[in-house]
Amino acid sequence: MTKIAIAGSGAMGSRFGYMLQSAGNDVVLLDNWAEHVQAINTNGLTVVEAGHEPVQVRIPAALPTDIKEVQDVIILFTKSMQLVDMLQAIKPLIGAKTKVVCLLNGLGHPETIEQYLPKENIFVGITLWTAGLTGPGAITLTGSGNVELQNVDPDGKEAAQALVALLSAAGLNAQYSSDVLFSIWRKACVNGTLNSLCALLDCNIAQLGQTPQAQQLLRSIVAEFSAVAATEAVELDIPTTIAHISKMFAPEQAGGHYPSMHQDLVQHHRLTEVDYLNGYVARKGAEKHIATPVNQLITELIHAKEALLIK
Amino acid sequence: MTKIAIAGSGAMGSRFGYMLQSAGNDVVLLDNWAEHVQAINTNGLTVVEAGHEPVQVRIPAALPTDIKEVQDVIILFTKSMQLVDMLQAIKPLIGAKTKVVCLLNGLGHPETIEQYLPKENIFVGITLWTAGLTGPGAITLTGSGNVELQNVDPDGKEAAQALVALLSAAGLNAQYSSDVLFSIWRKACVNGTLNSLCALLDCNIAQLGQTPQAQQLLRSIVAEFSAVAATEAVELDIPTTIAHISKMFAPEQAGGHYPSMHQDLVQHHRLTEVDYLNGYVARKGAEKHIATPVNQLITELIHAKEALLIK
Repeated sequence: MTKIAIAGSGAMGSRFGYMLQSAGNDVVLLDNWAEHVQAINTNGLTVVEAGHEPVQVRIPAALPTDIKEVQDVIILFTKSMQLVDMLQAIKPLIGAKTKVVCLLNGLGHPETIEQYLPKENIFVGITLWTAGLTGPGAITLTGSGNVELQNVDPDGKEAAQALVALLSAAGLNAQYSSDVLFSIWRKACVNGTLNSLCALLDCNIAQLGQTPQAQQLLRSIVAEFSAVAATEAVELDIPTTIAHISKMFAPEQAGGHYPSMHQDLVQHHRLTEVDYLNGYVARKGAEKHIATPVNQLITELIHAKEALLIK
Repeated sequence: MTKIAIAGSGAMGSRFGYMLQSAGNDVVLLDNWAEHVQAINTNGLTVVEAGHEPVQVRIPAALPTDIKEVQDVIILFTKSMQLVDMLQAIKPLIGAKTKVVCLLNGLGHPETIEQYLPKENIFVGITLWTAGLTGPGAITLTGSGNVELQNVDPDGKEAAQALVALLSAAGLNAQYSSDVLFSIWRKACVNGTLNSLCALLDCNIAQLGQTPQAQQLLRSIVAEFSAVAATEAVELDIPTTIAHISKMFAPEQAGGHYPSMHQDLVQHHRLTEVDYLNGYVARKGAEKHIATPVNQLITELIHAKEALLIK
């Protein structure tokens, strides 16, 4: 039995933990939300899935600092701004052979993780699975998804493939990627345009797409993402990326959806992940003497809106 | 008796018209809002001033196209985006000796006006008077103010001084300015920061000033204003201008005030004057190969918000 800790068990972490345990692994859900942890330990994790009876699944949960046992695999699923605190809290769980998989949104996380363990044990990826957290201990599962995964260390392909097999055996539809950095940047570009603009303009994706300014706004943001990505050997073609993002404007795609940054900032008055999207591009641009005024301004506007809305 | 037409008789135009008529001039108020014009002609202009009994003043009003008589002086007081239509409508009122005074907010208006009459008859200025329009035919007057005025044609100083005398005789506290372009740019810079940011972030001036991002936001906008102003021989020192704007953040200054662009866009879902502030800087920057990505982005964001809010 593979010992797996989910570090950050919100909606997505709980979904992954639930599916991995169902496949026979020894899973523990770690999270800092005490009420959530207690609900799971008292009543089990409540899983609601369209077309199925709701189930309550016994699955151990704990605060990150309450567990000390070294794990085989740790899947990081925190919000970006909680990553460092989580890594600090789970230090005792990271042994010499522990593989750590980072599935967070946003840019710059591998650099952070490398301060806690050797490169050869770090794997990064993205996922298109979705899930919702409806209250302490309760998640809803919708749709299907996949995972793309790659080793950070050039020699780590075999280990990455073993992780891909582990995830796929749990129905998580994982693939080995030979260029996961491209996928991460492209996803960050989607979030750095649609999330940030919908949060700033207080609209959903379809409404943004219908403004006459949408294409020009996308172009100015994506151009800077592309220039900074190039310094990390990622080729983000500007017209192709804009076309990829623009597909989401269609109502039958994500159109009617309010992206997570809108939910966080406008709906729930919480801090956003902007520092790991537009903010990362602005920061790296400054380091590398690439002009990134557009992403700098968007980052400042989002932070100003945080300062105004979060008491 | 000097024949004066007020071209655009909202709150400010009506105030100027009222004061100029009280000083013995032959004034007509021109406006496109038919209900407003009719109310003034039926009941007189209702003027409410703190510490005074409300008065109803007989003063002729008309739609701009309803008057054909050549004027001695025309004072332009439209919203920026209505200027061209107004000039077109009042063509018959502009004779060879008609002096036209532009007191609009924003940048780029003299260029527009020069298409309708010779430079030597054009005068530009700014005013710090304020007034409110409370309904058709009704204005409120608060506080005091002044007018700075200058000739566009280098040889027009005497004519400008005559206009200054005309305004001052009506209690409008006018001064001849030897560098009105500087004053216009500086005021545009105040509006291009406080108006645009408060409209985008949905806050008042004091709240904007309290965000940790305020100084950096001001700096990035003002730096581009300064660079473009320099191409028009206006020296807008960046730190001095930021300090000038920052004074408004104090609650005892304009702090608690929602600027006009916030009122237009957020409160009343009307088009803004952004194209004559940040948009002008972006447009002129592009013409003159000066990078203005910050003002370009702010213009696009405001226009996108207009598209979202105005049905």
